[in-house]
Amino acid sequence: MKYLKEEYQNRIPYHAKMISDGIILNANESPFPLPKTIMDEFIKQLSQINLNRYPDTDVTILNEAISKKYNIKPENVTCGVGSDSLIDCIMKATINKNDLILTVFPTFSMYKQYAELYGGIIYEVPLNDDFSYNIDLIINEIKKTNPKLVVLCNPNNPTGSSMSLKDIKKIISSTNSLIILDEAYIEFYDEKESGINLFIDNLIVLRTFSKAYGFAGGRIGYGISTKENIKMIDTIKSPYFINSMTMLLATLIIKNNDLFNERIDYIIRERKRLYQEYLSLNIEIYQSKANFLWMKLNDEIENKIDDNKIYIRKFNINNKKYCRISIGTVEENNKLLEVISSCVKH
Amino acid sequence: MKYLKEEYQNRIPYHAKMISDGIILNANESPFPLPKTIMDEFIKQLSQINLNRYPDTDVTILNEAISKKYNIKPENVTCGVGSDSLIDCIMKATINKNDLILTVFPTFSMYKQYAELYGGIIYEVPLNDDFSYNIDLIINEIKKTNPKLVVLCNPNNPTGSSMSLKDIKKIISSTNSLIILDEAYIEFYDEKESGINLFIDNLIVLRTFSKAYGFAGGRIGYGISTKENIKMIDTIKSPYFINSMTMLLATLIIKNNDLFNERIDYIIRERKRLYQEYLSLNIEIYQSKANFLWMKLNDEIENKIDDNKIYIRKFNINNKKYCRISIGTVEENNKLLEVISSCVKH
Repeated sequence: MKYLKEEYQNRIPYHAKMISDGIILNANESPFPLPKTIMDEFIKQLSQINLNRYPDTDVTILNEAISKKYNIKPENVTCGVGSDSLIDCIMKATINKNDLILTVFPTFSMYKQYAELYGGIIYEVPLNDDFSYNIDLIINEIKKTNPKLVVLCNPNNPTGSSMSLKDIKKIISSTNSLIILDEAYIEFYDEKESGINLFIDNLIVLRTFSKAYGFAGGRIGYGISTKENIKMIDTIKSPYFINSMTMLLATLIIKNNDLFNERIDYIIRERKRLYQEYLSLNIEIYQSKANFLWMKLNDEIENKIDDNKIYIRKFNINNKKYCRISIGTVEENNKLLEVISSCVKH
Repeated sequence: MKYLKEEYQNRIPYHAKMISDGIILNANESPFPLPKTIMDEFIKQLSQINLNRYPDTDVTILNEAISKKYNIKPENVTCGVGSDSLIDCIMKATINKNDLILTVFPTFSMYKQYAELYGGIIYEVPLNDDFSYNIDLIINEIKKTNPKLVVLCNPNNPTGSSMSLKDIKKIISSTNSLIILDEAYIEFYDEKESGINLFIDNLIVLRTFSKAYGFAGGRIGYGISTKENIKMIDTIKSPYFINSMTMLLATLIIKNNDLFNERIDYIIRERKRLYQEYLSLNIEIYQSKANFLWMKLNDEIENKIDDNKIYIRKFNINNKKYCRISIGTVEENNKLLEVISSCVKH
């Protein structure tokens, strides 16, 4: 491409095709539509927001709703077009060419995508063989490499591995490097293990509406940190970043977040059930605290899943095939279970 | 800020306070709510989009609707979170530190905001004394400085100055530099003067739903260019950039764009009327082809406007006060006219 900068010429952007037909278990979405009471209220209030006017660039109503939920101050919150746009902002704000960004492997691929936009170099600390976090190794590698930025996902995408708050505190206190703690899936783990109330200088916690709150279509996530770090993000963020409709609907979601508890419990229950089911089929499966399972994949199972128009996310890790399977409805989960069973049992 | 890169430490981001009360003529928004038929259809179709799923990252339905309107191909269209996010993407894709970006002065302040994010240096070619474009000067300065990027706004924000398509072609053919032609306000000027059908290698045309289409709250704009330039933007753009609700509503707007002709005519009619009115009051006012007027401001008028809770955009150009006044409804326009008249006549 004639006008594209040299350093981007070989860039392959993340891309996912839209799926219109089949069982969709590849994007860790919620299988549930938004609660009817929330949608009804949204439509009622929609006529009161002036879509001909620019949105509130300060996202006041939503920041206030979020801060009320967590008993923090609005000045400690900032919203983005999905939490990954905040990863983008933070990396843009902090990363110079050839700066080191420490993360684990495997983890969410967008960390690398954004890091590369700003010339950052991703340094990957491997997870343990069972895909659990190796806290001591992470701390040692941070000390050894002194990275500009550390990005950790808890629970981790795509493996579901989790860290305790105690371990997180240990990592944070071992370094002055800025740490992004991506808690996109924390609702499926345990709010008590969240770093959201720590407010340590070098910590930014990211959350999203795309997973537990089932609002991936709205593209909204938020960051929680010290006033200074929030100001840093807002210095880089585009004005009028959050559209008025998403702002309104996300505000209604967070104000009515109790409505989601049952759905979250459903997913956790299904995750536990499916883990046991797959285990009993002798599938190589790993402990997950998120809304997905992480397991070994072979060609036969892969083909059978494809043939049944079930969509899962496939990975190649050190030349072995794995897959990340989102937890869907009982019916969807059972359909997949049945397909996989038929491969194992015959 | 401890973690912010050195080069951003003095950055002052663009910020506009939310106005809840008064006459809002400061953001070049449409004074009209979206047509009821479109909103009704939107609410009807809203239940059919799965907000729990990620949006179509390829923005298929909207790109198709846009390309149909202009009789071009979907591969020549890309959508952004407001057209300014596309300015951001293009600058990120093309600008290296200390690269020159040629534009005019005064023009849309976000060009400079985004240029500075990527270390670009803005080179400003002055407009004529009457704020009209000096085409020969622009061409000479492009030849002299050989900029990496040229950004031109037609009609220009905040002055309303316009260029003919003939002049635009003259500028484009004078250089190999990439040119962003920002046509945010072209609907209030003349579609025949648009560069949208040129498809020249070094031209990207930007359009928005925020002005003539009255959908500033949805944050959606689009770029039209060669397949290669669109691919360049999409290489840099974040996945799932456009949320599902905005995508749907923008699609309905563009499919029903005839509904907006009357509104556009209303604004143009009011612009012409107000221009004559202000002229007859001996206000120093300039020719505008956009949905706003550009005029000289003095302290007395400024204070009176402020006192009446009328919001306009104020500028200081070479130590002289000017203002940009959006065209509102007849009632809003008359209220402002009355306020200004009272200053002039007493």
